[in-house]
Amino acid sequence: MHLSFVFLAKPVLHGYFRSSCSWRVRIAFALKGIEYDQVPVNLIKDGGQQLTEQYKKLNPMLQVPAVEIDGITLCQSLAVIQYVDETRPGPRLLPADPQKRAQVRMISDVIASGIQPLQNLHVLQKIGAEKVQWAQHFIDRGFQALEPILKQTAGKYCVGDEISMADICLVPQVYNAERFKVDVGKYPTINRLNQTLLEIEAFTVTNPSCQPDTPADLRA
Amino acid sequence: MHLSFVFLAKPVLHGYFRSSCSWRVRIAFALKGIEYDQVPVNLIKDGGQQLTEQYKKLNPMLQVPAVEIDGITLCQSLAVIQYVDETRPGPRLLPADPQKRAQVRMISDVIASGIQPLQNLHVLQKIGAEKVQWAQHFIDRGFQALEPILKQTAGKYCVGDEISMADICLVPQVYNAERFKVDVGKYPTINRLNQTLLEIEAFTVTNPSCQPDTPADLRA
Repeated sequence: MHLSFVFLAKPVLHGYFRSSCSWRVRIAFALKGIEYDQVPVNLIKDGGQQLTEQYKKLNPMLQVPAVEIDGITLCQSLAVIQYVDETRPGPRLLPADPQKRAQVRMISDVIASGIQPLQNLHVLQKIGAEKVQWAQHFIDRGFQALEPILKQTAGKYCVGDEISMADICLVPQVYNAERFKVDVGKYPTINRLNQTLLEIEAFTVTNPSCQPDTPADLRA
Repeated sequence: MHLSFVFLAKPVLHGYFRSSCSWRVRIAFALKGIEYDQVPVNLIKDGGQQLTEQYKKLNPMLQVPAVEIDGITLCQSLAVIQYVDETRPGPRLLPADPQKRAQVRMISDVIASGIQPLQNLHVLQKIGAEKVQWAQHFIDRGFQALEPILKQTAGKYCVGDEISMADICLVPQVYNAERFKVDVGKYPTINRLNQTLLEIEAFTVTNPSCQPDTPADLRA
């Protein structure tokens, strides 16, 4: 049964306010004007609510996000973002031009495969005492690659002058970099793009500082 | 200038026989019937040929593959695979149905973001003495998630009965698992799909055991 174009119910995002991959999905939903419900999954409380048998059915990787949408459950944020782009109206999240689409996917994957997985919670728990230096190393290494790529592809945003999935990935990764005290000022293109994007409503209303599960002491 | 549909020159794949991400691109090219040139980048010799200033211009992440195609240079294998799928004739590498496309991307990203980055060369070099146990942990953790996902989505191949990008990611990851002595037999669906796919020409002719840069003692 295909429900792709029927939209019977609002999508449900199982996520965590501070998870960069959950934030990516929130930005995509906001840019597309998609209403959705949020179910918080606290990655810290009770030893990690993502580790329960119940949550495992939603995302067997035991990570956030998981998204229930149109009768299926998806994990992996870039799969979710491209699915809503292909099934919902609103501004394109990937450009029409195949070469620009490829550049958007390349930048997104430098972040989603080359940086974020190396500084996520489970990995840092395994690293232990050296975790801050570990995270800094991989974020710096990734940003050293992103900076020259973005210098070539960027206009007002990561690829040309239209907001895309690459921008959706960039801002939450810069947020992570700042949490780990990486000096983002060393990367002028990344820094400039991040500042520009942070002014846009879809990025502000989805910020970790103002989500339903943001603890009171971290609220902006 | 758009060269996307002009194909002036053969694509050039800068890769390494044993790199699973290079193998993904080789499979995609083979399935699509795309002729290409290979330039070997030896990840071990001379301290790693991917670390040279010359190679850095092709892939600033200092990883393989990098692909020169239609006048642009792309890194990140899934961006390359989707680019050739969108610009070349031949069998589709992503299904037409949006929900199946999303499942293909989800499975591909579980591997490309959730497993491979944690067992790549640079990470294992940083881990040092514990590297085999580290790689086994992350491959097993990923396969424990992949197995129930594939049980739901698979037909003859990872998603239904058509070969897709998910299959292109699966086989090289199983190859890595075997290199690190993970018991793939624990994952019956993964194992069955891998065996089926290994019979297909696009997977055999691109195998690490028979590439131009495969050392004589590793040749099949």
